[in-house]
Amino acid sequence: MADEYVLVTGGAGYIGSHTVVELLSANYNVVVIDNLVNASMVSVSRVEDITGKKVPAHQVDLLDKSAIRDVFQKYKISIVMHFAGLKAVGESVALPLLYYHNNIGGTVNLLEVMKEFDVKNIIFSSSATVYGSPQYLPVDENHPIGGCTNAYGKTKYFIEEIIRDVCNADKTWKGILLRYFNPVGAHKSGKIGENPQGVPNNLMPFIAQVAVGRREYLTVYGDDYDTPDGTGVRDYIHIVDLAKGHVAAIDKLKRDCGCVAYNLGTGVGYSVLDMVKAFEKASGKSIPYKVAPRRAGDIASVYANPEKAEKELGWKTTLGLDEMCEDLWRWQSNNPYGYETSS
Amino acid sequence: MADEYVLVTGGAGYIGSHTVVELLSANYNVVVIDNLVNASMVSVSRVEDITGKKVPAHQVDLLDKSAIRDVFQKYKISIVMHFAGLKAVGESVALPLLYYHNNIGGTVNLLEVMKEFDVKNIIFSSSATVYGSPQYLPVDENHPIGGCTNAYGKTKYFIEEIIRDVCNADKTWKGILLRYFNPVGAHKSGKIGENPQGVPNNLMPFIAQVAVGRREYLTVYGDDYDTPDGTGVRDYIHIVDLAKGHVAAIDKLKRDCGCVAYNLGTGVGYSVLDMVKAFEKASGKSIPYKVAPRRAGDIASVYANPEKAEKELGWKTTLGLDEMCEDLWRWQSNNPYGYETSS
Repeated sequence: MADEYVLVTGGAGYIGSHTVVELLSANYNVVVIDNLVNASMVSVSRVEDITGKKVPAHQVDLLDKSAIRDVFQKYKISIVMHFAGLKAVGESVALPLLYYHNNIGGTVNLLEVMKEFDVKNIIFSSSATVYGSPQYLPVDENHPIGGCTNAYGKTKYFIEEIIRDVCNADKTWKGILLRYFNPVGAHKSGKIGENPQGVPNNLMPFIAQVAVGRREYLTVYGDDYDTPDGTGVRDYIHIVDLAKGHVAAIDKLKRDCGCVAYNLGTGVGYSVLDMVKAFEKASGKSIPYKVAPRRAGDIASVYANPEKAEKELGWKTTLGLDEMCEDLWRWQSNNPYGYETSS
Repeated sequence: MADEYVLVTGGAGYIGSHTVVELLSANYNVVVIDNLVNASMVSVSRVEDITGKKVPAHQVDLLDKSAIRDVFQKYKISIVMHFAGLKAVGESVALPLLYYHNNIGGTVNLLEVMKEFDVKNIIFSSSATVYGSPQYLPVDENHPIGGCTNAYGKTKYFIEEIIRDVCNADKTWKGILLRYFNPVGAHKSGKIGENPQGVPNNLMPFIAQVAVGRREYLTVYGDDYDTPDGTGVRDYIHIVDLAKGHVAAIDKLKRDCGCVAYNLGTGVGYSVLDMVKAFEKASGKSIPYKVAPRRAGDIASVYANPEKAEKELGWKTTLGLDEMCEDLWRWQSNNPYGYETSS
């Protein structure tokens, strides 16, 4: 299958770019599409630097169906990895139609073009947010889904259901739904990493921006949760482990599988303060923080049961908290303003 | 508000056309849009016959956003009643992308244009199917939603969630989600009624086509359910009662209400064989039937708790089983091939 390509939508983004590195390392041909609304083609050239391979990349918006078709006409695509989508929880609450239009509309366009070109293998970038507020811990894949309280989470859940229906309607489709816990860190080269626009929504990029001097202090939302130190506990997973999970999912897709969901997490929960301390150790910087009230919708603890992925994908995480923080710090200190040269 | 219009999407269809009659009777101005994929403009002219009023109607597909904009530019619209959508359960299982594309994409387009034109009142044609397989009976509006097993039902559920999110994001929006049980019957004039394309998906149109000689016999799917006579029990509601529920919902929208869901049902369940007997009585025709195995996804009994609508909308059903069957028979015998002149 030397002439076949894996199409990576959102391939210039944080998770997409790291996954492209691992795909290339596993000798897959990759073509990237990205609308660059929340990403930069600089990441693609950095991926080329890291791997020493060329990565064809096109600025394509999934809302433009004919542009998607052009890509399928140009490349012989056998598998689609679908990362593209808006992802800011708060923005999705304020602008739900934007999220439904982009994320659902874009995905339906993509699936329709895949169907036209008889490409029926998809690996979807889902999220542990589909579980809503967990009824038990650790969360496994049999946990009920759909209790999402924001439009971002609902688009992940709705897209899972759409892919499930497509696979049910035509048994020659195969779908793998990868439910990410909290991806952090960066490639060990320090050349690619998370590059949030504006104020980071997630903890670790915020901490890293405090360390590098772009932000004065971290706000910790709630220290009165029912957790060991009172701050929220999450399952942080190194981005390179996460990316390798996608390569393992391809191997699974090549066998018969219908539509299956897998947690990608470590199974271990760390608190906000655990992460602060670990990052201080890795960076040698002090991270000042202030405690603020809990945020609406936040929950005390979420962490994965990763056994199904280990058993069926033959994949598990290998990188720990120290690597997450060291690699994030290398990226952030080498690239204080991400792919831009200044603020 | 003499110059303001209620926009009725899918207004040439079964529920839409009956609702237009009741809106006109209550002195609302109405403009109809319909893509006519599953409906006929003949129904609109029949509505004009019945009411003696003109009904502006445009062939507009909700996937064509600029066509929707044209309608909003031409008429001063204050409220949207959104009926348009594909509705065949079996087809939705076979062609899920068609349903997601049309129903979700069309609704998001409609909501976006409403937002552009500052029209923030929507009454949505939802369905009791959002409850999935009921955990208790009668089903009230607090019953969990989302357990739908087919793409048709999921689109109803997803659209409810989308409207809910839009109303949450901007408190000047108002949404009413009307969850229909099983609409049957026809306007008492016999001029408008249900006009399914191909083999009817629903029980009563099928029975009526047997009575009128278009089909040889009725197939009853399962007579071993845990119900009084073993056949499935549903909450059938006369289409004119249902249509009047929409007028009551407008009154509610004019008061402050955020986003609220109401069951539209009678609270009474009848079995398949109850309906057969009632229709035989009303039509004077014998309805031969054959029992076949249960269909996948069918459930024994579903009927509504209609108290919330009675309390908050001041609406309840007034027409019984006899009127449902007599009115359906009048429509079917006067129009054996619906709005077409022959098979």
